[in-house]
Amino acid sequence: MNTAALYHRPESEFAFLYTNDTLRIRLRTAKGDLKQAYLLHGDTYTINAEDWCQEPLAMKRYLSTNVHDYWICETGAPFKRLAYGFHLIGADNTEVFYGDHGVLPYTEEMLAMPNNYFRLPYFHEIDRFHVPEWAKKTVWYQIFPERFANGDTSNDPAGTLPWGSKAPDRQDFFGGDLQGILDHLDHLEALGVNGIYFCPIFEAYSNHKYDTIDYLKVDPAFGDEALLKKLIQECHERGIKVMLDAVFNHMGDTSPQWQDVIKNGADSPYADWFHIHEFPVSYTPGDDFEEAKDLTYDVFAFTPHMPKLNTANPEVQEYLLHIAKYWIEEFDIDAWRLDVANEVDHHFWKRFRQVCDETKGDFYILGEIWHSSQAWLQGDEFHGVMNYAYMDAIKDYFVKGIISMEQMIAEINQQLMLYRDQTNQVQFNVLDSHDTPRILTEAQGDKDLMKQVTAFTYLQPGVPCVYYGDEYAMTGEMDPDCRKCMVWDSDEQDQDMFQFFQDLIAFRKDWQPILAAGEMQWDVVDVEAGLIRLSRRTPEGIISGVFHTGETGTEACSVALSGKLLVSNLAVIGDQEVLLSPKGFVIFAETSK
Amino acid sequence: MNTAALYHRPESEFAFLYTNDTLRIRLRTAKGDLKQAYLLHGDTYTINAEDWCQEPLAMKRYLSTNVHDYWICETGAPFKRLAYGFHLIGADNTEVFYGDHGVLPYTEEMLAMPNNYFRLPYFHEIDRFHVPEWAKKTVWYQIFPERFANGDTSNDPAGTLPWGSKAPDRQDFFGGDLQGILDHLDHLEALGVNGIYFCPIFEAYSNHKYDTIDYLKVDPAFGDEALLKKLIQECHERGIKVMLDAVFNHMGDTSPQWQDVIKNGADSPYADWFHIHEFPVSYTPGDDFEEAKDLTYDVFAFTPHMPKLNTANPEVQEYLLHIAKYWIEEFDIDAWRLDVANEVDHHFWKRFRQVCDETKGDFYILGEIWHSSQAWLQGDEFHGVMNYAYMDAIKDYFVKGIISMEQMIAEINQQLMLYRDQTNQVQFNVLDSHDTPRILTEAQGDKDLMKQVTAFTYLQPGVPCVYYGDEYAMTGEMDPDCRKCMVWDSDEQDQDMFQFFQDLIAFRKDWQPILAAGEMQWDVVDVEAGLIRLSRRTPEGIISGVFHTGETGTEACSVALSGKLLVSNLAVIGDQEVLLSPKGFVIFAETSK
Repeated sequence: MNTAALYHRPESEFAFLYTNDTLRIRLRTAKGDLKQAYLLHGDTYTINAEDWCQEPLAMKRYLSTNVHDYWICETGAPFKRLAYGFHLIGADNTEVFYGDHGVLPYTEEMLAMPNNYFRLPYFHEIDRFHVPEWAKKTVWYQIFPERFANGDTSNDPAGTLPWGSKAPDRQDFFGGDLQGILDHLDHLEALGVNGIYFCPIFEAYSNHKYDTIDYLKVDPAFGDEALLKKLIQECHERGIKVMLDAVFNHMGDTSPQWQDVIKNGADSPYADWFHIHEFPVSYTPGDDFEEAKDLTYDVFAFTPHMPKLNTANPEVQEYLLHIAKYWIEEFDIDAWRLDVANEVDHHFWKRFRQVCDETKGDFYILGEIWHSSQAWLQGDEFHGVMNYAYMDAIKDYFVKGIISMEQMIAEINQQLMLYRDQTNQVQFNVLDSHDTPRILTEAQGDKDLMKQVTAFTYLQPGVPCVYYGDEYAMTGEMDPDCRKCMVWDSDEQDQDMFQFFQDLIAFRKDWQPILAAGEMQWDVVDVEAGLIRLSRRTPEGIISGVFHTGETGTEACSVALSGKLLVSNLAVIGDQEVLLSPKGFVIFAETSK
Repeated sequence: MNTAALYHRPESEFAFLYTNDTLRIRLRTAKGDLKQAYLLHGDTYTINAEDWCQEPLAMKRYLSTNVHDYWICETGAPFKRLAYGFHLIGADNTEVFYGDHGVLPYTEEMLAMPNNYFRLPYFHEIDRFHVPEWAKKTVWYQIFPERFANGDTSNDPAGTLPWGSKAPDRQDFFGGDLQGILDHLDHLEALGVNGIYFCPIFEAYSNHKYDTIDYLKVDPAFGDEALLKKLIQECHERGIKVMLDAVFNHMGDTSPQWQDVIKNGADSPYADWFHIHEFPVSYTPGDDFEEAKDLTYDVFAFTPHMPKLNTANPEVQEYLLHIAKYWIEEFDIDAWRLDVANEVDHHFWKRFRQVCDETKGDFYILGEIWHSSQAWLQGDEFHGVMNYAYMDAIKDYFVKGIISMEQMIAEINQQLMLYRDQTNQVQFNVLDSHDTPRILTEAQGDKDLMKQVTAFTYLQPGVPCVYYGDEYAMTGEMDPDCRKCMVWDSDEQDQDMFQFFQDLIAFRKDWQPILAAGEMQWDVVDVEAGLIRLSRRTPEGIISGVFHTGETGTEACSVALSGKLLVSNLAVIGDQEVLLSPKGFVIFAETSK
C-alpha cells in the first residue's frame, strides 16, 4: 500500500459538519491503491469500552484525480463527539490503521490507544459552514453597468460615444447607467435569472469603476441613490437578488484621501491609510496607462492609479465596515462581491463577515479569487469564490482542447475535494466575465460548442452566472473588448441563443436540489469518440447529461435514453435512444430511481 | 516518483510568514523519493515576464517520518506577494511541476500558465501567527493548589486531613492554599522557573476545582482576592509569569446557575446556558462518582457534576468573556490555560482571543488538547497546546519502551510539521501533570531515566513545565495519586534531583534562543547501542545532546566531546571524549560554528 499518499486533516474539508448532526469525512489515498476503507468510530470517552465501534463503516470510493482516490462517508454521534480512525485494506491485501499518530499496524494494541484516533471533539452548530439557501438556487446575471444600457442620456459623461459605435478602448464611455438596467428588467425576468451581480457602481474615475472615489455615492454617470433604491426594490419584487461589487483592496488615486496624501505627504491624516514606503509618493510612468515603475507605494498589480488600502489600520477598517453595512442597511442588497479579495487580509474579512451577518440574515459573500481558496472558505470569511480554477478545467477541455478529458475530470474532482460539500454548492461558476474573453470568442464563434460547455456548466454543483450579452451570443476578446455595448437592436440579437439560455436556466431552477447537492458520477462512455456522461444523484432522483465532445465532422453517437428529456442540442431524439452529433448534448432526468 | 504522496497547502503550516517579510514554505514528499526540490517563485503579476524566477531556490530536506520527507525553504518578495510552485526531481530522475493545479509535466508551457502556481497573495503582518516573546523564554511550574502547601490553616475545609498523611483519594482535602504558595516562592525562584501554571483556584466543590461554582471568586479554602493579588504581584517582582486555569467547557453542578435549572427547569433564566435535551434534568448514577447514564443534558465525559456550557448562547459568551477580561484587568495575569479546550466552539475562542489581546499585550493562551491541534493554532485562537501528542512519543520510547527510536523520531517530526515554526516554539511540553502518572513512576522509580528523559525534553523547541514535586523526585500513579501533598520535610526531599532541575533550568534559560528557534538535526549514532544525538542549530551556534538509551547494564559508549559541556548525567568526562553509561546523557554547546 502507498501509505505515503494518505492524507486526512481533522476539522477541515476532510471532516466537516454537513448538517447539525451529520459529519462528513473524506480520506485521500493513492489511486487504485485500496480494496476498501473503513471508518472506525465511536465516542471519545469510551474508546476502551467493549462495545466501541462494533460496526466499522464502509467508506465509498468517490472522486478520483490522476493520482488520487477520495473516499467518503457520513456519520453521526449520539453524544455529539467522535473519535475516528481508518482501517485500510490495500489492493495488495496489506492492512493498516491510519489515525492521529500516522500510519500504524492494524493491531488490537494500536486500536486500544485513545490517542491514536482523530477527533471531532464536539458537534458545534455555530462552527458549521453555513450557506444561505437562496444562494444555492440562484442563476446570476453579471452586468458591467457602463455597457448594459443607456436609459438616461442626461447623465452621460463628456465625450460619451454613440452606443455600440465601436469596439471599446480602455478609456471610452458609452453612457450605460442604472436607468438602462431598470428599463430592461423585463428582459432579465424573461431570461429567468434571479440574481444580478453589478460591477462597481460607486463614484469612480474610470469606465469600469474599480478605482473608487467615493464609496458612499452612486456614480453620477450611473444615476443617484434614489434610483438605485428603486432598482433594487424592483429587482426584489421580481424575485431577483442584488449583489454589489466592493473594491476594498485599493482606492482610486483621484479619491480625496489619496489626493490629500499627494498634497500633504506624511502629514496627511490619510498617510497611514495606504502602504507608503517613501514620501512624497511617486512613480515612473510605464508604456501602459496601467503600469508604472519605481512606485513608492503599494498598488494593485503595477497600476499607479490604484493605491492599496492598509486594512490593518483600524480607521480604514471602520471606514470600510461602515460602507459594507451602509449599503446593506439602507439599500437592502443581498450580497457583496469582493474585488481582489485574496490580497486583503483575513483579519479584515473576518470582521467584514461579522458585520454582514449581523446586519442581514442569509447574506452571501463572494470573493474574487482565481486560485485555491481554502484559507478564505473555512466558514468565517466568504461563502464562495469566483470559481475560475474550476471553470478553467472545463474550458481547457471543451473549448481550448488543451487538456484531455481525463485531466479535466481529475481537475474538477480535485477542486471539489478542496472544499466542503456545502461550499461547492454556492461556488460561483463563471465561463466568462469582464476579466476574460467571452466564451463564444473562446469557442471561435462556434455556437454549438458554446451551448455545450454552458450546459455542462449548469450540471455542476456551483451556481452559474450569465455574463450580460452571452444570451444574445455576443463576442469579445480579452478586456476591454469583452466589455462591448449590449446589443439591443433585435436584428443583432441571436434569438435562438436567448431561447437556449431560457431553457437552460429553467432547467437549472426546476432541478436545483439535485444539481446543488447531488453526488457526482462520471461515466466516460467512449474516450475515443469523446463521449462523456455526468450524473448527479440524490435519493430523490438522478439527472444525467451526455456530451459529444468529438471534433465537428466526427461520427454521431447513439446514447440510450433512460428518462425524461430535459434539454438538448444537436441531438436527434428517438423513442429509446438519442443520436448525438459532435458538439451536441442531451440532459435527462431519471426520477423514478 | 511517488507523486501521490505530495502535499502542500497554501496559507497553512505549509506556507506561513515567519517574520513580517519572510515566508517559510514546506513540501511533503514520499521518503527518499526525491533527489532535489526547487521552489520556483516570483511576483504574482509578472509570471510571464522574461526575468521571472531566474533563480530557482533549492529546498532543504529537513525532517522525515517513517513514510515522508519534509522539504523546507525560506523566501521574501519585493512586492510582498508571491506566486510559487515546485520543480521536483525524482530519485528515478523523473521531473515534474507541482502547483495549484496538481502535478503537471515540467514544461515551458506549464510554467508559463499563471494559474498553475500557488499563491501567497500579500504578506499581511496582521495575519501572521504571533507569539509573545516571553512565552518562548519561560520554564513553567505547575501547581495543584490543594496539594502544594498549607500556609493558612484557618481556611481549611471541614475534614481536612493532616498534610501528606495518606495517598489522596478522589474526595480528600489536605488544606493547600495560596498562602502556602506565597510562602514558598523562594523555593521556585531558587529552582529557576519563571512561570507558574495554577490549576483552578476559583470557588468550586471538589478538591481539583474543575467544577466551578463562582468564576469571580477565589475559593475560600485557598484564600481571597486580596491574597491572590499579592501573590501575583510577588511573582511579577520575581520575574515569574502567572497563568490561571479557565474551565469554560462546563460548570460545576453546585453553581447557582445549574441549581436554578434543577429548581425551575425550562423556566430557569439559565435553561439555555447548557445543552439540555429534556426537563427536568436527570441522570442515573453509575458505579463511579464521576460516571452516570441516561443523562438528559450534555456534560464533560459522563460526569453528571459537570454540565456542559452552551457557548453559542450570547449571554454565556458575555459572561465568560467578562471573566476572561476581569482576571487580566484586575489581577494582571499573563496567560490563560483553557481546560477541555477542544470541546468548546471555535467561534467562542476567536472572540476570547480578541478580548485577551485587547486587554493585555503579549498575553499567552494555552489550550488543553491531547490530539493534533491545527484547527486551534491558526493564529486567531490559541498560541499553543499542552503538547501531550508530542510528549507521548518521547515517553513511549524513553520510558515505556513500547516504540522504536525511529518511530519516536518519526512521531516528533510529524508533530513539528503540523504547526508553524513559531507555534512549535511555544508549545507546552509536559512530561506529566495532574492528569497523568508522575514521570518518575512511569520510569518505575529510575531517577537516571527520569533525568535523561527530562533533559531530552528540555532540548525540544517547546517550553518545558515542571509538575510540582518532580524536582524532589515525587512519585504518583494516575490521578488521584499524582496529586499527593508536596514534600516539605527536607528528609524526604531528593536534593540531588533538585540540583539537577536547577542546572537544567539554568541551561534552558541560558541557551533559550537556540533551543527555541534552532533547526532540529537527528543523528542516530548507534541504534543497536541506543545512542541518539539531537542537535539544535542557528547561525549563532549549536547545542547538541547525546543520550544513551540502552538497557541498564549494557555497555558504556564513548562520545566525542566537541564543545563546551553544559549538563550531563552518568557521564565520565574526559578531555576529548565522554563515556556515557546507559540512561546517561551529555549536552554541550558548539558556539564557534
